[in-house]
Amino acid sequence: MDDVKRILQQVASGRLSVEQAEEQLSGISRLDYATLDLARSARTGFPEVVYGEGKSASQLVGIMERLREHQKLVLVTRASEQQADKVRKRWPDVQYIAEARLLLSTKELLVPERDGYVAVVAAGTSDWQVAQEAAWTARCFGSEVKVIVDVGVAGIHRLFQRLEEIRGASVIVCVAGMEGALASVLAGLVDKPVIAVPTSVGYGASFGGVSALLTMLNSCANGVAVVNIDNGFGAGYLAGMIHRQSAQPQ
Amino acid sequence: MDDVKRILQQVASGRLSVEQAEEQLSGISRLDYATLDLARSARTGFPEVVYGEGKSASQLVGIMERLREHQKLVLVTRASEQQADKVRKRWPDVQYIAEARLLLSTKELLVPERDGYVAVVAAGTSDWQVAQEAAWTARCFGSEVKVIVDVGVAGIHRLFQRLEEIRGASVIVCVAGMEGALASVLAGLVDKPVIAVPTSVGYGASFGGVSALLTMLNSCANGVAVVNIDNGFGAGYLAGMIHRQSAQPQ
Amino acid sequence: MDDVKRILQQVASGRLSVEQAEEQLSGISRLDYATLDLARSARTGFPEVVYGEGKSASQLVGIMERLREHQKLVLVTRASEQQADKVRKRWPDVQYIAEARLLLSTKELLVPERDGYVAVVAAGTSDWQVAQEAAWTARCFGSEVKVIVDVGVAGIHRLFQRLEEIRGASVIVCVAGMEGALASVLAGLVDKPVIAVPTSVGYGASFGGVSALLTMLNSCANGVAVVNIDNGFGAGYLAGMIHRQSAQPQ
Amino acid sequence: MDDVKRILQQVASGRLSVEQAEEQLSGISRLDYATLDLARSARTGFPEVVYGEGKSASQLVGIMERLREHQKLVLVTRASEQQADKVRKRWPDVQYIAEARLLLSTKELLVPERDGYVAVVAAGTSDWQVAQEAAWTARCFGSEVKVIVDVGVAGIHRLFQRLEEIRGASVIVCVAGMEGALASVLAGLVDKPVIAVPTSVGYGASFGGVSALLTMLNSCANGVAVVNIDNGFGAGYLAGMIHRQSAQPQ
Amino acid sequence: MDDVKRILQQVASGRLSVEQAEEQLSGISRLDYATLDLARSARTGFPEVVYGEGKSASQLVGIMERLREHQKLVLVTRASEQQADKVRKRWPDVQYIAEARLLLSTKELLVPERDGYVAVVAAGTSDWQVAQEAAWTARCFGSEVKVIVDVGVAGIHRLFQRLEEIRGASVIVCVAGMEGALASVLAGLVDKPVIAVPTSVGYGASFGGVSALLTMLNSCANGVAVVNIDNGFGAGYLAGMIHRQSAQPQ
Amino acid sequence: MDDVKRILQQVASGRLSVEQAEEQLSGISRLDYATLDLARSARTGFPEVVYGEGKSASQLVGIMERLREHQKLVLVTRASEQQADKVRKRWPDVQYIAEARLLLSTKELLVPERDGYVAVVAAGTSDWQVAQEAAWTARCFGSEVKVIVDVGVAGIHRLFQRLEEIRGASVIVCVAGMEGALASVLAGLVDKPVIAVPTSVGYGASFGGVSALLTMLNSCANGVAVVNIDNGFGAGYLAGMIHRQSAQPQ
Amino acid sequence: MDDVKRILQQVASGRLSVEQAEEQLSGISRLDYATLDLARSARTGFPEVVYGEGKSASQLVGIMERLREHQKLVLVTRASEQQADKVRKRWPDVQYIAEARLLLSTKELLVPERDGYVAVVAAGTSDWQVAQEAAWTARCFGSEVKVIVDVGVAGIHRLFQRLEEIRGASVIVCVAGMEGALASVLAGLVDKPVIAVPTSVGYGASFGGVSALLTMLNSCANGVAVVNIDNGFGAGYLAGMIHRQSAQPQ
Amino acid sequence: MDDVKRILQQVASGRLSVEQAEEQLSGISRLDYATLDLARSARTGFPEVVYGEGKSASQLVGIMERLREHQKLVLVTRASEQQADKVRKRWPDVQYIAEARLLLSTKELLVPERDGYVAVVAAGTSDWQVAQEAAWTARCFGSEVKVIVDVGVAGIHRLFQRLEEIRGASVIVCVAGMEGALASVLAGLVDKPVIAVPTSVGYGASFGGVSALLTMLNSCANGVAVVNIDNGFGAGYLAGMIHRQSAQPQ
Repeated sequence: MDDVKRILQQVASGRLSVEQAEEQLSGISRLDYATLDLARSARTGFPEVVYGEGKSASQLVGIMERLREHQKLVLVTRASEQQADKVRKRWPDVQYIAEARLLLSTKELLVPERDGYVAVVAAGTSDWQVAQEAAWTARCFGSEVKVIVDVGVAGIHRLFQRLEEIRGASVIVCVAGMEGALASVLAGLVDKPVIAVPTSVGYGASFGGVSALLTMLNSCANGVAVVNIDNGFGAGYLAGMIHRQSAQPQ
Repeated sequence: MDDVKRILQQVASGRLSVEQAEEQLSGISRLDYATLDLARSARTGFPEVVYGEGKSASQLVGIMERLREHQKLVLVTRASEQQADKVRKRWPDVQYIAEARLLLSTKELLVPERDGYVAVVAAGTSDWQVAQEAAWTARCFGSEVKVIVDVGVAGIHRLFQRLEEIRGASVIVCVAGMEGALASVLAGLVDKPVIAVPTSVGYGASFGGVSALLTMLNSCANGVAVVNIDNGFGAGYLAGMIHRQSAQPQ
Repeated sequence: MDDVKRILQQVASGRLSVEQAEEQLSGISRLDYATLDLARSARTGFPEVVYGEGKSASQLVGIMERLREHQKLVLVTRASEQQADKVRKRWPDVQYIAEARLLLSTKELLVPERDGYVAVVAAGTSDWQVAQEAAWTARCFGSEVKVIVDVGVAGIHRLFQRLEEIRGASVIVCVAGMEGALASVLAGLVDKPVIAVPTSVGYGASFGGVSALLTMLNSCANGVAVVNIDNGFGAGYLAGMIHRQSAQPQ
Repeated sequence: MDDVKRILQQVASGRLSVEQAEEQLSGISRLDYATLDLARSARTGFPEVVYGEGKSASQLVGIMERLREHQKLVLVTRASEQQADKVRKRWPDVQYIAEARLLLSTKELLVPERDGYVAVVAAGTSDWQVAQEAAWTARCFGSEVKVIVDVGVAGIHRLFQRLEEIRGASVIVCVAGMEGALASVLAGLVDKPVIAVPTSVGYGASFGGVSALLTMLNSCANGVAVVNIDNGFGAGYLAGMIHRQSAQPQ
Repeated sequence: MDDVKRILQQVASGRLSVEQAEEQLSGISRLDYATLDLARSARTGFPEVVYGEGKSASQLVGIMERLREHQKLVLVTRASEQQADKVRKRWPDVQYIAEARLLLSTKELLVPERDGYVAVVAAGTSDWQVAQEAAWTARCFGSEVKVIVDVGVAGIHRLFQRLEEIRGASVIVCVAGMEGALASVLAGLVDKPVIAVPTSVGYGASFGGVSALLTMLNSCANGVAVVNIDNGFGAGYLAGMIHRQSAQPQ
Repeated sequence: MDDVKRILQQVASGRLSVEQAEEQLSGISRLDYATLDLARSARTGFPEVVYGEGKSASQLVGIMERLREHQKLVLVTRASEQQADKVRKRWPDVQYIAEARLLLSTKELLVPERDGYVAVVAAGTSDWQVAQEAAWTARCFGSEVKVIVDVGVAGIHRLFQRLEEIRGASVIVCVAGMEGALASVLAGLVDKPVIAVPTSVGYGASFGGVSALLTMLNSCANGVAVVNIDNGFGAGYLAGMIHRQSAQPQ
Repeated sequence: MDDVKRILQQVASGRLSVEQAEEQLSGISRLDYATLDLARSARTGFPEVVYGEGKSASQLVGIMERLREHQKLVLVTRASEQQADKVRKRWPDVQYIAEARLLLSTKELLVPERDGYVAVVAAGTSDWQVAQEAAWTARCFGSEVKVIVDVGVAGIHRLFQRLEEIRGASVIVCVAGMEGALASVLAGLVDKPVIAVPTSVGYGASFGGVSALLTMLNSCANGVAVVNIDNGFGAGYLAGMIHRQSAQPQ
Repeated sequence: MDDVKRILQQVASGRLSVEQAEEQLSGISRLDYATLDLARSARTGFPEVVYGEGKSASQLVGIMERLREHQKLVLVTRASEQQADKVRKRWPDVQYIAEARLLLSTKELLVPERDGYVAVVAAGTSDWQVAQEAAWTARCFGSEVKVIVDVGVAGIHRLFQRLEEIRGASVIVCVAGMEGALASVLAGLVDKPVIAVPTSVGYGASFGGVSALLTMLNSCANGVAVVNIDNGFGAGYLAGMIHRQSAQPQ
């Protein structure tokens, strides 16, 4: 309510155009090629995120421009190096986290805002990129994140070596390709939610990640839920959300 | 450590047989047909749960007998009426929650142990059984649960009517069959984790729940993770775990 | 019948060759590599449309040349820029609508021929091309078309903002990828036929559009039918056909 | 608005209870196991339809009772003979159309309300039940329906014999199992929308209707859209909707 | 037996080396990378055919060299232009039939060796290459072949115009992509065996030819058998074999 | 033409009713639930065959009655014992070949009408029923048939023992389940067409015959085409058709 | 050779009929419905095994009768209780091992014939039947077998408790359903071959064992090979074969 | 134990750094991007193998450097030519076996260490690369390997010609694409374990190796187990392991 009043006052005083006011009141900003959801942060606790794949560089710039006006943090997923170059030419302050294919525009440094941390545990070196995407997304939620890589079940003592660190986390993201068995093993050893991300790492009958996906959905250990294949972003998002809810502000 | 000492003292004093002491120290109790995991509660925060399907009534009784010795709460999922009858003949205090196909043996009443609640939201009347399985499982974690049924997207104002109730929850379980679109719509409207359960409700190209499963995995809204088809137990488990972590003891 | 007489008189008077007369009487025109269906317009109310993919530029030119002799409107779908260049070199009046990958050769301007309009509603910016293919195809039927983009269910108020416009349409084409939930939500809010087009937008377990396809086939809301993945043309065609039938000539 | 006033006056005069008034104003009526959508007719032009499968007879009776209070027409699909017996014991005026597995409660006779008709064309004798479900659903929209059976492509002159009858329809529902080729052939011969219903008739590699479904989705002829396997109701619904829109009231 | 004697006499007279004699007696010729089956013609009535895909040009030349010593006709399928160039540099008399991707080395002209002909009927222009592969393979059996293209079911009168020509054939090869309905229609109109070849032409839910494959396997018309997707060679082979058997030598 | 005259004379002389004459002239006979194709024999060389599955006994009797008036031979496939009992009660001369689930009504004994024979070769004892269906169907074409059972590749000398018999056939039907390898082995050893029938015999990853189906479609040996899973009828039909064409009348 | 002579002498002396001699010389014994492979033992080291499913009791008796004449050991897999009753009525010495669904006719007791043992390790109680089938099959090879049940990864210390026992085996059969992760974990801990058997235990997206099958095929740990879903026999067979080869006779 | 002492003495004497000692005692060596399993050889009898695909050249060099310090043999699978060049620039003694895509770093020559040999039998020339991968992997186990290529079932006498050689092996690896029938035929002819490798060779309905995979899983012949599609390494590994166990040191 106060928001409405404040907006109208800004219009009255000329500090806000009619169009801008309409956007803020409706929570919607329209471009020719996009309908931006400015109310998302209020509704879901996190601002609209842009899916980079398949968007032209100019569309991306257009969308980011509009969002930067309204959001403290603008995140673009699946951004290619080409897209990143174009965007960073326009705004050199935008960060490109290449290993996670993320473009990150933020007015403040990302610092841990609460106790505890999220653990991102990846089975193999090849799951690196997806793990990083999850880690950086959770960091955008103000979570501290620890990444633990290459502790797959073929050498299970590697997992045990890191177990205390993993058990200390508030939420665990488990990233694995091939047969994806790590999620079940992990969930049987911890008392925290495990968000499992199947990756498309593998060949032959891994069918682009379907093998790991099915494994994770059928986990005999409890406390596991699954996101789409290679969807590190989705897992990091959910982990951040759970951590935010479970932890005390620092 | 203290545990070990206590166990040994009980052996010394004859209050514990050597076999029982061995079980407690190893955390494993063996039957001919099963290897019970007595340490699960210590490891994962919830005792071993028995999957009822495909077990003979006498196996079930045997397993429950052993677990009742060690656990305050014994939960059996996918229990048929026949199994329930046999079990309740033996222990009349065991509850059979028919609409969730659960057998529940517990030394204390299930009462909410913390603030907040879990919302279980189901798209249709036919998703009832899966929703109840989720609800009762979360209650075993000490969570209060509210069940909201038949608010699928074909009449979306039904969902909006209940939205405040849903938004008030700490975690949301979303149960839906057919095309499973409710999960995406819901996740776009709340700032809490959504655990989605696809159900096998539907026909033709729903392929026994695959359609809803794929919908939920591909959700364009964020903050959703998915469990196996018809796996109300798994969703309730994860919801209970997240709620336990996020809320203050009452 | 009169047609036959007219054709024969033209032959008698030398205005039509024997070969041309035979074509017109049989409704078939043969090329080495194609058998053109000149009677299609009479049978189905719309002339033969050419599927561009996989045809060499010279085949395309050959086919278009023959069809231009017999049809007022020649439409080529899935035409590449390369094909378009070759064709427009030959006939500069042919339009290439790049965003819909359509080549359009028409003797008259496309103007709305009847009351009412077709709404093409797309869930995301990435569905743009398919939406445009649907829109332009319906325009070839003489329908007015309104295109509404990026109103997917993750921010459902965007859809409500445009609802009156959508409800005012005679037919609705709904274009969506990923989990394709928009079709169900939309169909629950309108009293007009919804033609749903799943798109291959998405990744992982979207399986090139299968996820959206299954969602749409399993819609719990009524009044929805589905066309092939990415088949904007097919949806626009059906929408144009329904609109033609339902509306009064202007 | 007038509705609101009328409802309040009825409350004032005691002709309507507070609960009933609330239901009518919200458009929602709640039962323990269902949330009925009383506003559907106003939104979509057709009242809520009940999916019978998986509902207990008493749930069905409960839902129908509530709907009969608010709707002129109550339709139950996929109703078994057992369900029908229970329902008709309660309300002998309810019709059970066994060959379409429909329960139909209506205050008025179903008579054609407009010019023209819907043609339901089925490839084989085994597609009878699905064809009847489509036909009766369209009749609920006030459409006249002609059913033409066993004109599949193995003896294509059977189709040609009935072609004039089919071409005279305003909309065509095409029902076919096995390879489902009828839809393409038909669509190439008519200038009206074809709603295709794949059926699960067939064996071996027909995979419960998948073969016919894929055939219909890939139709090389235009003007075809597809509904779920065996979904005669969905096709009849869409056909009725299109016919309603396209035809003049009688 | 006489063969054995003849071979031995050639060895005795020095006209045949011991290695060559061994090859001929065993029916096997070994290269490092291949084991050639020289006895295939005697066993199956057609010499070994080389599958070109995935073989290096030098392997191909090596294999052809050996086979040319023993066989009147050497056929290579799926040969790329690059492979063809290398081979024809070595033996300019080898023909490359680009539209069928076949390399053909033959000591005699291919002329019809018997009455009657094989009809290769293709649904669309895009099926051309597969149709040509079938046609040329059948010609290698000494069959006359007529190719009839673009007579798919969307304009079924095109098929009827050519029906007499098709009915005159001894065997029919039917080539179709997308929904592949042509095979069923054709088989219902002729009294000759129909060998159906699904092609990978199509998009979306055609799944690289699976749609057409299933259609053809589920044909409601009788007298149809199916070969692998895009396997024009296999269909032409079988057609040639049937024709050889059914017809009188000219 | 003479047929037309003869029919009219029969009408004139009262030997044929007007309805019967119309049927014969149109080649179509209508029942409430079926549209019989009386012209099929003239078109395809074999009369309409009835698919028994899913038809009520009275429908079956009705269809057979009508067909018996017009056809010398009436064949019903997939007929259950119950259906057979009903039919044979009405016409005791109809044969039920239980092992092939065929009902056979014929005015003349089935005797070989031409030289040569069809070989039906089955991999295992479990393929018996499908093999018999193929054998009896081919016999309806006037072919002699030899059935050779249980010669699968696990003991390949069993196949070699029967090879001369198999090689002597004019056409070979190969019936196999599980991995279906027999088709490839067989085709590599003979110079006759092989019609392969995958059967649903097997378990686990045989997926109801899919494994054998794929094997047969991918045969590395040439001269093989495939029919639907368990479709013995289809294979016998095609074999009879090829044999009829290839052999001299006796 | 000596065999041949011995057989002929037995014929000469009348101890063997001509038919029996022929069977022994050809290695083939024919029944109407089966072609028995008497030479299998000589070729593969194990006599022909009968697949019970789908065979009538009298066929089974007929086959066993003939095999008992020639083989010391006759094994029938997938035998139902009904089949077992019929068989044991005829030969009371035949054993029915119900928990493995095996019928076992053997002239000598099954005793370990060599050093070492096979370990059959099953993830859950529900995998019992498949594990027993594997165990008894390996025993038929003369192997000692240890069965270790319910040591799945959800409580991985159960596996470690038994690890020494498992590591002591010469070959390991790993039986698991649901997500089948046990195979990978096990293979990473041992230096012996692991034969993995996926089971159809599970629900939802386990797809009848496909999930476990894919997991096992994609194992990131080495030294694993996989047999068909639920194929305990196949795994036990291979394990017996490997053990036989690797171990010294006792 | 002695190892521990030895390591500590080396630390004491300064011959080993603390970090190196820690690595050896934990069996784990950490890099930023990998967690190396130094204990694998002790546990499984073969040192950790590196999966080359998707690793950068510098990661590969880093991993190999560390492993070369601890292992006599370092094997990299799926190594590209580019990777090989980088690695061999660093260590010219590393071998690149291009036809198997293997990088091999070994301190000693690979010589047969025991009696007997492994036979790798491939159906076609196109299976060469997978066969070589299997062969070289088995050689790393100290096995002699014989490779027999292009003996597929289309010309089965080629297989019989080599049968003695194959039967002489201790273990057999069978490599085949397309329909993969060779595995069944082979297993029916030998008394040794057959490890089957499906390859992705084929087209159309071979679905990238799925056809061969299913064939091999459903083998009617016993003694076959299967590894992942194109997984020559896995098959060679298992074959080496079995051979090592079964044979006497030379």
